[in-house]
Amino acid sequence: MEIKIVRNVLESNDKIAAEIRQRTAASKTLLVNLMSSPGSGKTTLLEKLAPLLQNKGYRVGVIEGDIATTMDAERLQPLNIPVVQINTEMFGGDCHLGAEVISPALDNLDLSQLDVVFIENVGNLVCPAEFDTGADLNVVLLSVTEGEDKPLKYPLMFRVCQLALISKTDLLPHLEFKMDLLRQNIQKINPKIAIFPVSTRQGEGLSNFTEWLVERLNK
Amino acid sequence: MEIKIVRNVLESNDKIAAEIRQRTAASKTLLVNLMSSPGSGKTTLLEKLAPLLQNKGYRVGVIEGDIATTMDAERLQPLNIPVVQINTEMFGGDCHLGAEVISPALDNLDLSQLDVVFIENVGNLVCPAEFDTGADLNVVLLSVTEGEDKPLKYPLMFRVCQLALISKTDLLPHLEFKMDLLRQNIQKINPKIAIFPVSTRQGEGLSNFTEWLVERLNK
Repeated sequence: MEIKIVRNVLESNDKIAAEIRQRTAASKTLLVNLMSSPGSGKTTLLEKLAPLLQNKGYRVGVIEGDIATTMDAERLQPLNIPVVQINTEMFGGDCHLGAEVISPALDNLDLSQLDVVFIENVGNLVCPAEFDTGADLNVVLLSVTEGEDKPLKYPLMFRVCQLALISKTDLLPHLEFKMDLLRQNIQKINPKIAIFPVSTRQGEGLSNFTEWLVERLNK
Repeated sequence: MEIKIVRNVLESNDKIAAEIRQRTAASKTLLVNLMSSPGSGKTTLLEKLAPLLQNKGYRVGVIEGDIATTMDAERLQPLNIPVVQINTEMFGGDCHLGAEVISPALDNLDLSQLDVVFIENVGNLVCPAEFDTGADLNVVLLSVTEGEDKPLKYPLMFRVCQLALISKTDLLPHLEFKMDLLRQNIQKINPKIAIFPVSTRQGEGLSNFTEWLVERLNK
């Protein structure tokens, strides 16, 4: 009985996710789902990335997902881009964003005027990987402070993503962290995933990520 | 229908949690549930803390919770203490430890020979806070690299804990991090919670945490 209901929830989510892909394909909007542990730097990445994409002529929007507060949406205000905040506390403090909350969030954006919309998922390296948001691309951030073992311990997240960004590389001199070991661990889980080290402080890797996105925007 | 089943699951979990408390009270074993985001330093903390408690004559055991791998249990091998590994991948990759998995884990420990058992929960700042493990004490770790805003954005975790450990304080010189602001944000959510900054590298705060535990062990 329980299993049946869980399956229904996932089937219903997948159906809405498919509808989202039809909508974003029609408006030629790329939907990118950013996932990570809390505090890996998703919001800071968006603060730095949006101007780089705007400079190249792309119109950017953001869907912010948090259990509580509008702090992240407020941080993005200076960018002057459309931002929709979802607070999952309204639906019981959900630990992830499902397609059923992304769909009404998209209603609040004029997709005909947007080339790329980023979803900043709830900070959680587990549950967001289990729910299709309707995004075209899944990207995981992992900060170097979290340790090289995380891809092996949280494998689903690295399986469902096309790109892994290794964030906060400016802290490497102060850590015992082996980038090669992390790369090996990620590739054990997903040999096809792209991997870019990034530092929003030093600007490292931002152009790699921008080019990677532009390639997919022009498809 | 769905709501009824979810309630049943939580009711059943609470019933098992109550049974766990009866068992640990009978054996005079303190059960401590450690929770945090991935990579905040739970395993490293246990590596440093267990010898301090052993030096004071307390017998320590650990229940390790991970979605996959036995890496954390292996790291604790040199301590020569009983360690039970739970892999939630066996039950669908659960994002938290519930009382229903803690209970059989306790069957694998001789509680009559243990004064304190630590549960290292799955790395996740959201879901573990929603499920009573049967522990006597809930402790959250938050590393300074995660940012001061996290208590406001993940409020339930800070509501259910009696102690917040602010970890990796040795990295403070390399971060723009305001400890006072973090304390304010934690206290906004839970005015009664104890707060200790800790650095397992420099040893800061470990004696505070040890004393806090010893006080509760002697009750």
